[in-house]
Amino acid sequence: MTSQPSESKVDVLIVGAGPAGLMMATWMAKCGISCRIVDKRGTKVFNGQADGLQCRTLEIFDSFGFGDRAWKEANHMLEICLWNPDKDGVIRRSDRIPDTIPGISRFQQVVLHQGRIERFFLDFIAAHSDIRVERGVLPSKLEFDESLAEDTDAYPITVTLRHLSEEEATPGQVATSANGGAVQDGLFRSNLAADDTADLLKAADLNAKANTTEVVRAKYMLGADGAHSWVRRELGFCLEGETTDYIWGVLDIVPLTNFPDIRSRCAIHSASSGSVMVIPRENKLVRLYIQLTTTEKLGEGGSRADRSKITPDVILKAAQKIMAPYTLSYRKLDWWTAYQIGQRVGSRFSKNERIFLAGDAVHTHSPKAGQGMNVSMQDAYNLGWKVASVVKGTSSRAILSTYESERKQIAKDLIDFDHRFSRLFSGRPAKDLMDEEGINMEQFKAAFEKGNMFASGIAVNYDASNIIAKTADTSSGGAKTTANLPSVDSTQALAPKVKVGMRMPSVKVLNQSDARPWHLQERLPSNGTWRVLVFAGDVGDAGQKARMLRLADSLAAPTSFLRRYTPAAARYDSVFEVLTVHAAPRASVTIFDFPEVLRPFDELDGWDYNKIFVDDESYHEGHGRIYEEFGIDPKEGCVIVLRPDQYVSYVGALDDYASVDKFFSSFMLSRQAQVNGK
Amino acid sequence: MTSQPSESKVDVLIVGAGPAGLMMATWMAKCGISCRIVDKRGTKVFNGQADGLQCRTLEIFDSFGFGDRAWKEANHMLEICLWNPDKDGVIRRSDRIPDTIPGISRFQQVVLHQGRIERFFLDFIAAHSDIRVERGVLPSKLEFDESLAEDTDAYPITVTLRHLSEEEATPGQVATSANGGAVQDGLFRSNLAADDTADLLKAADLNAKANTTEVVRAKYMLGADGAHSWVRRELGFCLEGETTDYIWGVLDIVPLTNFPDIRSRCAIHSASSGSVMVIPRENKLVRLYIQLTTTEKLGEGGSRADRSKITPDVILKAAQKIMAPYTLSYRKLDWWTAYQIGQRVGSRFSKNERIFLAGDAVHTHSPKAGQGMNVSMQDAYNLGWKVASVVKGTSSRAILSTYESERKQIAKDLIDFDHRFSRLFSGRPAKDLMDEEGINMEQFKAAFEKGNMFASGIAVNYDASNIIAKTADTSSGGAKTTANLPSVDSTQALAPKVKVGMRMPSVKVLNQSDARPWHLQERLPSNGTWRVLVFAGDVGDAGQKARMLRLADSLAAPTSFLRRYTPAAARYDSVFEVLTVHAAPRASVTIFDFPEVLRPFDELDGWDYNKIFVDDESYHEGHGRIYEEFGIDPKEGCVIVLRPDQYVSYVGALDDYASVDKFFSSFMLSRQAQVNGK
Repeated sequence: MTSQPSESKVDVLIVGAGPAGLMMATWMAKCGISCRIVDKRGTKVFNGQADGLQCRTLEIFDSFGFGDRAWKEANHMLEICLWNPDKDGVIRRSDRIPDTIPGISRFQQVVLHQGRIERFFLDFIAAHSDIRVERGVLPSKLEFDESLAEDTDAYPITVTLRHLSEEEATPGQVATSANGGAVQDGLFRSNLAADDTADLLKAADLNAKANTTEVVRAKYMLGADGAHSWVRRELGFCLEGETTDYIWGVLDIVPLTNFPDIRSRCAIHSASSGSVMVIPRENKLVRLYIQLTTTEKLGEGGSRADRSKITPDVILKAAQKIMAPYTLSYRKLDWWTAYQIGQRVGSRFSKNERIFLAGDAVHTHSPKAGQGMNVSMQDAYNLGWKVASVVKGTSSRAILSTYESERKQIAKDLIDFDHRFSRLFSGRPAKDLMDEEGINMEQFKAAFEKGNMFASGIAVNYDASNIIAKTADTSSGGAKTTANLPSVDSTQALAPKVKVGMRMPSVKVLNQSDARPWHLQERLPSNGTWRVLVFAGDVGDAGQKARMLRLADSLAAPTSFLRRYTPAAARYDSVFEVLTVHAAPRASVTIFDFPEVLRPFDELDGWDYNKIFVDDESYHEGHGRIYEEFGIDPKEGCVIVLRPDQYVSYVGALDDYASVDKFFSSFMLSRQAQVNGK
Repeated sequence: MTSQPSESKVDVLIVGAGPAGLMMATWMAKCGISCRIVDKRGTKVFNGQADGLQCRTLEIFDSFGFGDRAWKEANHMLEICLWNPDKDGVIRRSDRIPDTIPGISRFQQVVLHQGRIERFFLDFIAAHSDIRVERGVLPSKLEFDESLAEDTDAYPITVTLRHLSEEEATPGQVATSANGGAVQDGLFRSNLAADDTADLLKAADLNAKANTTEVVRAKYMLGADGAHSWVRRELGFCLEGETTDYIWGVLDIVPLTNFPDIRSRCAIHSASSGSVMVIPRENKLVRLYIQLTTTEKLGEGGSRADRSKITPDVILKAAQKIMAPYTLSYRKLDWWTAYQIGQRVGSRFSKNERIFLAGDAVHTHSPKAGQGMNVSMQDAYNLGWKVASVVKGTSSRAILSTYESERKQIAKDLIDFDHRFSRLFSGRPAKDLMDEEGINMEQFKAAFEKGNMFASGIAVNYDASNIIAKTADTSSGGAKTTANLPSVDSTQALAPKVKVGMRMPSVKVLNQSDARPWHLQERLPSNGTWRVLVFAGDVGDAGQKARMLRLADSLAAPTSFLRRYTPAAARYDSVFEVLTVHAAPRASVTIFDFPEVLRPFDELDGWDYNKIFVDDESYHEGHGRIYEEFGIDPKEGCVIVLRPDQYVSYVGALDDYASVDKFFSSFMLSRQAQVNGK
């Protein structure tokens, strides 16, 4: 239309609208940050793709308010059955173990296809902002002015965006009917397929009409554009790692079978025909991951296998051989693909803390452990609130380096986990104790159980930094940025089970005002707010009450961090939310026994009845016993600081106001004169 | 447009789109019945109105799949606080009791305004059918051909419908802004206001353009058109009962108060200024029911009070006086109204089992106990599946008379409850033991606690009929239709805690195939299907397994009631769903240890993995112990038949197939040759 490309500014530009990009946009929507999100493809994913949701991912979804949608629609996967050859080489169930370790989360791992998960994000973003995914939009040029990197108000990133026509932006997969007879070719996004960006671009070149360009200048940018990441390549970063010879096929079918555990997650090792993993899904579907031993030699002239020889029928026949003597067939095939196992991790996650990479752009691995989508979303979940608080002027840029320090370690852990897990899974079972090349099935079970903790997402433990107040872990050998050490020390012993660096565990407490039981995590929605949890202890004890009052006096003072960092015109809980959990009997007190700073007053809404909670017996849902579960002494109490992503920043004495102030002072920016702009 | 009114046919015509009418339409939508629903008003309710949801109502919502929406949005009301004058006449909290009796349901009573509840119904109806509420449509003429009443295929009802213009169908209330400064006049639908039908009609007369008419012929009709029911008056039925002198005001406000229990349900009796009931609601709102002692004499020239003297300020001042020395004011007023307490019940609920009345059309009373909307919806919930199954040809018309026999008793119980409760609540507290005119506060508490069971909706116990196989209760004195007695007897002792006539209690069981815990009630969705619950007991016991197999053989026989009453082309569980709950350890069996009729095969979908459940420990949610909870002996088992509305029809021996067959034979119609039409 215009001969000169239009030019515009935006605070945050997201490239890629898969789960990582959408998670980033969700934070921007919730925090009111100006943001655009573009995706080169013309439509969203409708079926197939990744589908496991970790406990931690469900907690995160719930913190945005759509955890219940996933929980309701998903298949709940409760049990893992291990099947191994008996002495006659016939597969038998050797063990049953819970799929989610009991007690680690209020959620258990569930299964739901990526298309629905993207739908939840899209609905949330539409409900909370004007941000809309712009599809069929391809970035074609990236310029970055490094000299402006530390200038908070600058737009150092310049990106040229090319708008494709609808037709050329529609990839092969969805050109066939999603519901009709034609089954989608799952290989088009498999790692057996090449990047299709060049094809998309070439098609656009031929179509002058739709092929308009625009120039966008951004403060921050996220490359969430997958394993073939254009952003990563523009930055000159690479993925480091290796590819194996193991090739696996994937079938999403409604199975017709007499295998009795088809609705449990199963790891089936046959004596000599390879392995199958069974993942029962929603809508009667079952996903089968099937080792294609017969195609091991398919790779020619390089490490890539020959795609043309892999078909659903080839994959099914391999599964039938592994699962014999049980029968397996299907009439309904929803999706299929195949992939070659490999583990690679990005060399760098950020360019000057201005351009970030997340998701498959910085870690690729096998899909069987159901980790990829989860870790990708959690990358962006880690990053989003940090970028938002810097853009809003709440935090200094000093917190941004924690993205790479925190998430690169997770990516490495993931790759190590997947490496071990894949080899155990792809290997042949040992025939006996002398068979050293085979996999010992007891070892496999032990690895599986240990892997379950990692796979839940709950085990994530971020290292010391300006926003994680603990002693740095020097054992893991990573090069720590000493410039970014915490300004204060935690006293972990005051709440030994609330580990600094890990996400806050969840236990039920009661609202003091109405006796309603809540999981404490439910009171920590993802809205960009830091939380100061005041474990006041037994406030019926005079000494304990006096300590609470000392803390409250400091919090209420005009010079407190609450006042300094909260804009004068903003709501009292917009930057920090102070939540109190006490341990006196609920019926012995009312909220009016607590100082006003713990239950603020609003002249339109009255007292805030949602800030004070109690560790007591509920009428219908038992007793959470949070003091006991957290290891907090009711005659001592403590203060716990939580990041906006619910990770524990600090644990300290109830009346040690000074440390909390010092903690925030090291990275927050005074807002007394500012107005909390949208 | 046309000079001759158009004429059309419909199976079911519903007049009134309040909660009762919408519940009826919900059944019709789910069961695929041709249906129209009209309402004379032009818009739905946006705020105010009834708002308490009983446990039983939530169970019903959940059976349609939208219980979670209500549960998530509503305020959960956990506690009742009783406040009474102390010896100095100052109000004090005298007691705390749970608002919902622990253990009676998996839900607790919650509060949410009627507009949202109607929204859930409307969304469900839109998602499941082409039925749409037709607003601004007024029935103006009713003809009923009694001679055709027993002819199943006839359309004996002829109704003329008048279409109002949008303007004239918009009542006074919503003509003012719902969110703006103007507060809606809550009196327009109060019982202090006259029926506005005449006004609507008169306005329509003046507007010739929109005032078109049509004629609809219907098989069945429901009058759910409120206390001023046009349908009731056309039928010549009346409401019988009385009106009292007690006048109450209602304020929906965001309170500014230092009263400490404002987020609990409170019953506050002042020494001599009257009473207040506090109902905490969603979105910081609190509803106050306030006794207006100062306006007791307002009624002139009859029993109606003078509306013009009742304003929000008058109501607030009364509340302030009662709640002194606590302060109370507000800046946000959402809605208000006033009403005069009275209890009236309809003389008849049905005309020839062709035209039915439900909701306020047959029972009116005070709103304070939060019963009205619940009982109204439950009227239609009782009726809907019956009408649907007769229209579909599954059942004979013989089941329709149970609507009046079952619901008229409930209406009477409700009126009795409300009568006692209102008098206790409106009375002045006794000063001492000698004060016989005053209300004894211990008596009040006892009545409150007893009332809680009634108010939960769980206590409903339908009397014997052709669809409730128990010995008729002759004690309650109602005239029983002996023509409608059960064809078989239950053996209640086999499941003493699953009372024939009451709704099935709910306990958690595990799915045999995937170990997922479910509340048994969650497996009983409202879809019009009868359920045969096979409590097979410990199937590891040879004798027990043999009895199960005997039952299964009978069920699988070509002559069984499953085959006779299920159309040949219909799905195996479309009329009856057989659900098995066994008591052997889950890991000791698979579904293939059970006969095929208990886990049917479909050539596209394979085996049905959702029919066999087990009483065992779950991985994450404990052990339901359903055999123990229901009083069923695992070495005996039993069969329980549930109606499509989850009420227990029959309890009998596990291998007494003959009684179950006889039970269904008394009212079901053979469908062998029929096709299950929509």
